[in-house]
Amino acid sequence: MTKPLWDKGGGALDAAAQRFCAGDDVTLDRALFLYDVRASKAHVAGLARIGVISSEEATALRGGLDEVATEFLTGAFVLDERFEDGHSAIEHLLGERLGDIGRKVHTGRSRNDQVLVAARLHLKDALVDLEARCLAAAGSCLARAAATAEVAMPGYTHLQRAVPSSLGALFAGHAEALLDDAETAAAARARIDASPLGTAAGYGVNLPLDRDGVARELGFDRAQVSPIYAQNSRGKLELLAVQALHQALLSVRRLAWDLSLFTTAEFGFILLPDAYTTGSSIMPQKRNPDVVELLRALPAAAEGAMAELSGLLSLPSGYHRDLQASKAPAIRAFARGLEGLALVPDLVARLYFDEARMLAAITPDLHATDRAIELAGEGVPFRDAYRRAAAEAADPEGLAGRSAAASLRARVSLGGAGNLGLERLEARAAALRAAAARG
Amino acid sequence: MTKPLWDKGGGALDAAAQRFCAGDDVTLDRALFLYDVRASKAHVAGLARIGVISSEEATALRGGLDEVATEFLTGAFVLDERFEDGHSAIEHLLGERLGDIGRKVHTGRSRNDQVLVAARLHLKDALVDLEARCLAAAGSCLARAAATAEVAMPGYTHLQRAVPSSLGALFAGHAEALLDDAETAAAARARIDASPLGTAAGYGVNLPLDRDGVARELGFDRAQVSPIYAQNSRGKLELLAVQALHQALLSVRRLAWDLSLFTTAEFGFILLPDAYTTGSSIMPQKRNPDVVELLRALPAAAEGAMAELSGLLSLPSGYHRDLQASKAPAIRAFARGLEGLALVPDLVARLYFDEARMLAAITPDLHATDRAIELAGEGVPFRDAYRRAAAEAADPEGLAGRSAAASLRARVSLGGAGNLGLERLEARAAALRAAAARG
Amino acid sequence: MTKPLWDKGGGALDAAAQRFCAGDDVTLDRALFLYDVRASKAHVAGLARIGVISSEEATALRGGLDEVATEFLTGAFVLDERFEDGHSAIEHLLGERLGDIGRKVHTGRSRNDQVLVAARLHLKDALVDLEARCLAAAGSCLARAAATAEVAMPGYTHLQRAVPSSLGALFAGHAEALLDDAETAAAARARIDASPLGTAAGYGVNLPLDRDGVARELGFDRAQVSPIYAQNSRGKLELLAVQALHQALLSVRRLAWDLSLFTTAEFGFILLPDAYTTGSSIMPQKRNPDVVELLRALPAAAEGAMAELSGLLSLPSGYHRDLQASKAPAIRAFARGLEGLALVPDLVARLYFDEARMLAAITPDLHATDRAIELAGEGVPFRDAYRRAAAEAADPEGLAGRSAAASLRARVSLGGAGNLGLERLEARAAALRAAAARG
Amino acid sequence: MTKPLWDKGGGALDAAAQRFCAGDDVTLDRALFLYDVRASKAHVAGLARIGVISSEEATALRGGLDEVATEFLTGAFVLDERFEDGHSAIEHLLGERLGDIGRKVHTGRSRNDQVLVAARLHLKDALVDLEARCLAAAGSCLARAAATAEVAMPGYTHLQRAVPSSLGALFAGHAEALLDDAETAAAARARIDASPLGTAAGYGVNLPLDRDGVARELGFDRAQVSPIYAQNSRGKLELLAVQALHQALLSVRRLAWDLSLFTTAEFGFILLPDAYTTGSSIMPQKRNPDVVELLRALPAAAEGAMAELSGLLSLPSGYHRDLQASKAPAIRAFARGLEGLALVPDLVARLYFDEARMLAAITPDLHATDRAIELAGEGVPFRDAYRRAAAEAADPEGLAGRSAAASLRARVSLGGAGNLGLERLEARAAALRAAAARG
Repeated sequence: MTKPLWDKGGGALDAAAQRFCAGDDVTLDRALFLYDVRASKAHVAGLARIGVISSEEATALRGGLDEVATEFLTGAFVLDERFEDGHSAIEHLLGERLGDIGRKVHTGRSRNDQVLVAARLHLKDALVDLEARCLAAAGSCLARAAATAEVAMPGYTHLQRAVPSSLGALFAGHAEALLDDAETAAAARARIDASPLGTAAGYGVNLPLDRDGVARELGFDRAQVSPIYAQNSRGKLELLAVQALHQALLSVRRLAWDLSLFTTAEFGFILLPDAYTTGSSIMPQKRNPDVVELLRALPAAAEGAMAELSGLLSLPSGYHRDLQASKAPAIRAFARGLEGLALVPDLVARLYFDEARMLAAITPDLHATDRAIELAGEGVPFRDAYRRAAAEAADPEGLAGRSAAASLRARVSLGGAGNLGLERLEARAAALRAAAARG
Repeated sequence: MTKPLWDKGGGALDAAAQRFCAGDDVTLDRALFLYDVRASKAHVAGLARIGVISSEEATALRGGLDEVATEFLTGAFVLDERFEDGHSAIEHLLGERLGDIGRKVHTGRSRNDQVLVAARLHLKDALVDLEARCLAAAGSCLARAAATAEVAMPGYTHLQRAVPSSLGALFAGHAEALLDDAETAAAARARIDASPLGTAAGYGVNLPLDRDGVARELGFDRAQVSPIYAQNSRGKLELLAVQALHQALLSVRRLAWDLSLFTTAEFGFILLPDAYTTGSSIMPQKRNPDVVELLRALPAAAEGAMAELSGLLSLPSGYHRDLQASKAPAIRAFARGLEGLALVPDLVARLYFDEARMLAAITPDLHATDRAIELAGEGVPFRDAYRRAAAEAADPEGLAGRSAAASLRARVSLGGAGNLGLERLEARAAALRAAAARG
Repeated sequence: MTKPLWDKGGGALDAAAQRFCAGDDVTLDRALFLYDVRASKAHVAGLARIGVISSEEATALRGGLDEVATEFLTGAFVLDERFEDGHSAIEHLLGERLGDIGRKVHTGRSRNDQVLVAARLHLKDALVDLEARCLAAAGSCLARAAATAEVAMPGYTHLQRAVPSSLGALFAGHAEALLDDAETAAAARARIDASPLGTAAGYGVNLPLDRDGVARELGFDRAQVSPIYAQNSRGKLELLAVQALHQALLSVRRLAWDLSLFTTAEFGFILLPDAYTTGSSIMPQKRNPDVVELLRALPAAAEGAMAELSGLLSLPSGYHRDLQASKAPAIRAFARGLEGLALVPDLVARLYFDEARMLAAITPDLHATDRAIELAGEGVPFRDAYRRAAAEAADPEGLAGRSAAASLRARVSLGGAGNLGLERLEARAAALRAAAARG
Repeated sequence: MTKPLWDKGGGALDAAAQRFCAGDDVTLDRALFLYDVRASKAHVAGLARIGVISSEEATALRGGLDEVATEFLTGAFVLDERFEDGHSAIEHLLGERLGDIGRKVHTGRSRNDQVLVAARLHLKDALVDLEARCLAAAGSCLARAAATAEVAMPGYTHLQRAVPSSLGALFAGHAEALLDDAETAAAARARIDASPLGTAAGYGVNLPLDRDGVARELGFDRAQVSPIYAQNSRGKLELLAVQALHQALLSVRRLAWDLSLFTTAEFGFILLPDAYTTGSSIMPQKRNPDVVELLRALPAAAEGAMAELSGLLSLPSGYHRDLQASKAPAIRAFARGLEGLALVPDLVARLYFDEARMLAAITPDLHATDRAIELAGEGVPFRDAYRRAAAEAADPEGLAGRSAAASLRARVSLGGAGNLGLERLEARAAALRAAAARG
């Protein structure tokens, strides 16, 4: 490993301790490397603007940083165990290429600065992706809702058949959930959209850094004002972001549970496309909904990350090395969660339905609630209407003449099967897409 | 206990099972009771608007509901174990007072409707409170920041003295954290600000309920469109709200940790007002910072609630009784968290500082970073400047001539001790207060 | 409220701060009150043995403590908001009754001592209960396993029908899980079975307290040696205990999920007894498995408690008031978890099964695995056998001649449907019951 | 990637879905590979004992498996993305080398069998390591406790100086914690020490597998009886193991917090060896306790894993692909936790202490408790003794004549500074070491 930056030739860190300190940093920093390069370029430009380096030096440094990025992207440079982490690798490479000029990149900033700003940029992109994928999944659900608005199926409560409902109502429900999640992602992005760069180790520096200009170059909405808060927000903002991810994954889980249940032989309402099922290593006749089950498992990954982040956040103000451990959970949870979320639109678009089987599951007693409410509408106190409808439902002839289609049509309150309100949901989706496009 | 509403005279629930089902509902529902009354009134008005009940019936029902609320507030009616829960208590009381008319309150809605809307209204108020208390705490921190902007103290990283800093910088950091938290609370409120009333058991009803009108009467921003999502969002939106609470409590914890540390005999920077310390039952000479420590403990209560809510949310679509268990964690976490948060402004306002002691803790070596950056500013590559400053710091005479005040003044980048950016933070606070006042 | 013990007449705690500090202590301490009385009696006897109080004083104090306990049990004394907590209430009551002698009960101990030992005794009893209830539930499952060993049903993987199995195999699985849980409970009890009494505020006292004797009188296995660890173990041992509870509740959840699924109209394998179902407030025809669903929800309560406890445990050595917050999660989680667990044996004993329906669900293709293994047994490489069996399963005639009963009989490896190994599980249950009886 | 084992030539899994399904399996399986080889060898021997394969075939297969293991260890074979996971890699390699005979390794088992048994063996070894490392850390603490039994320092409560204590008392506290943790690890190991091999996909097979013999060859204490429980215990037993790890890491965290606090400039009681500190990238004069801080962060990693595992465990009986996600958290948490724990013995052994500074921190008022208890011992009711001692402590002359050494000597109750009870702790450590050696 190259010598740590801070090494003054004094006592060396014990080798096992050094490995323990490095942890998975080098691997994780692959996700942050290009963000660090971008932020380093902005920092350099800022230094030039205040005259700390010359514009020639700035040009050389920015060129060197571009080179480093290209080599990283092409694989010519591999970030691995030779380096303590990605942040020192960048400085090392610049030093190699540009000598003394290269070493000026670190003027007026600390490694904390680098880590913070790279992690913030990564998080922001992750939340932008999250919002986009929620909107895509919501869009797919809305399309299916529109197409299946009249496909009757039982509505369940307590997993017991309850009243007539429709596939359209089910997909509309998943769509609205994902629209909420898209908004949650956007709100989280807005909250973290602040540049920590220029706060050094938490107490600023004795240079007139152009923090606002640097924030602008990096596309941040604003600068994070307080250097102490820049440190204190580490882990806390990661947590906020992962919580937004978790909300979306909870919506995916609900959908996955529905698919898991409705594709059992016993329900038999839905068939998964082959592209989303696997076979068994011992049972020759089987097709298994592995993808659906792994989608269902996703919130657990976010919950793990949330607990890990929370578990770090009992500290006095200022930086502590504990906070380095906030990197892994956020990076891993987003990588996994976004990967899963990306599968949803296509999966939803390609589901098959057994409409006859769903219709057949609407047995006459499921009309009892409609009947009770009709009676109540005629002035019978609801509790009495309830008892009469219960008696009719128990009588095989009692409610046999009623049709599912009529029941759906009669459900006219906003959101009911006869009035799904898809145009409202679509308008909201369009507004969110437009806002996201504006950035 | 009064007979459950659904009791049709069939098999009775086993007594132990019934106690298990009821859980703490009656106690918890004390927090929801008045919200349920409000929502019931809106529901009744809506029924009248669509002609399901007459306007005389509506007037009688709304009057009866007002009476119930008054009796609850005055203690004339006590919600206790005689009732299955608060929701059935209301219906029972109306039936007693108004007979058949009283029983019409339940027309076109289910108990799920009642629970959902009452819990949503409670959550909304809790988030409004949360935002207000974050802003109050931020305001108190900003005031102290302004007053102590020139009070020097060491800045710490890794709990080691690092560079000169100021009390003002510390309070500005806590203020900015709490402003972020206020925004997070507002965003969470915006997300949950949707009326679930009129979605019945998750599939709507065969009545043309005026869901938008009811939402408006209740002060909601909009109606939640999908009845299935109304059910599926249960627990999920509570989680979103508690996460917002948790963010604020994390900020309180940082502050509490600072107070806990800085009030030790060894640091001795800060003294707590007597009104926030207690004595020991065995050690006669002691004063203990119990309040500060219990503030530090607060995030754990939110983490418990978050884990409990997450642990419920692995279910197919639709209502399941599991979701009833989402009530307790949300109600308890907000009650406790808001109680603690309310103490912060006064506690912060009444802290004493030992300025001499803080100044004395800024030993000459803490100027090494300033020195290195000065050298770098003069063109020395930062790594070399770093080595020279380290040598000077190790020499007792090396940096002895530098003053803390000068160091603070030189920290001129935005947020640094010489440029705290309080006017920006105050402008943000003012904007948030104005937005909150608009609701 | 009576004046806090430590009040020396100096600055009074702010009223809101005092309520915040007290929290729910008085309510929670109802669960600890009698344990504190017991421990106080043992402490008094110990003081007498070392001559710090006379034997007459000890007799008076123990008599006074017995009276307090009786009044608490009969309701003559109610622990409520007049007192800071249950621990000070005891001392206050003794002082009232016995004057100066009464006040000697606190000699050589601190309130921390009281809290620690009462909480430890409560936790120990909770774990004893936990073990007993796991064994009772396991016993009920074993009985049903023996009775249904030959009742065929499909075995599922991925919720897809996989191979023939039996109800007996299912109940044997739940039984073995609960036996593991009973052992986990016993191991947790063994770990916490150490008396903290006599460690004062974490540093012992300058008296030759008979800590071993006191531990013996209280039925502890041993004394916790280090006073610092007595403090440091607070919350940590509660966590260990709740984790044991959680393991058992996970087993209950699996069972509850099976019941929830198998009682759907679509599966229709199992019918719940009326005593464990409820009706709907809006849907007249329904019976809902609320009890089963609330059992399924139970692990979430333990997870909440675990997260809350973990969230407190980032502190230097010694007592901090944060640790008071460890009381509520442990007491609440055990109260709820044990209440639910107690329902399991009767619920399991009274389930109805639809054997015909289960048998009908074993379609011929479920024999494909047996067939492949038979072929493999005849020397066909397994991958080839697998392909041949798959082809036969796809052919309607291919595996139609095979019977479920024969398939079960052929599953002769330990634990298979033809060799459930119930005698092994029963022997283990008997050994655990015997060990529990020895204590 | 090689074709999945179950591929029957039907619809192929979508490429993105396939990557999503594979996840990090190949990387994680590097930790399980050799365990799978060992288990495969035992399975093969078992097949030969029941005559399903010949002894020649068994010899060939076991030889082939040994070769695979050697190639893996030497790096000749690298487990990477060419394979779906480590389990299919083994079968693939055997097939390549041994043709039809190679493919017989899978007779009578499923991939679930392989995964379960390999994960169980890994977990068992991890718990054996955990116990050993707890004992080593406890041993190091005990040695330091013995050497520093008379080194006085203040005892703290609420981070406030409370009473005289000793370094020896502090290390004894950490030692007893770690001894508890060693026992917890041993108990967890005992619970999971059961072979799942031979349970196939959760329903056994139609072969008379010698499950007990296979369990014996693999060094398991017993066979897990129920195949359904073998599946249902997945994730649950990983959770039990990680909980044991967490207990130990909580003890490490307490120690790390003490070191973090006592090495501040303000306390200045303890100095870390250079081998465990690092420098700063921006502050030339600093040495930072990074190792200590990362040790303090460790419980968060376990908490993340615990939450992730818990989040998966809401499922009906039987295998579901969700459970695959239980692999990563357990493997990662143990890798990280055990790495950190291994640093503790040496770190503790090499700490420096500033005895003069610790002694100086024992100001006269810290003797107030001793004084109050002396008075109480003379018959003064404790509350009055308390008030008199408080008055003396407030008087500068009041308690000035008392010495720390005398105070320590007078603390004679078990565990007190004058009677640390180290021999008891050492006897317990010896007994645990002996039991661990017996295995």
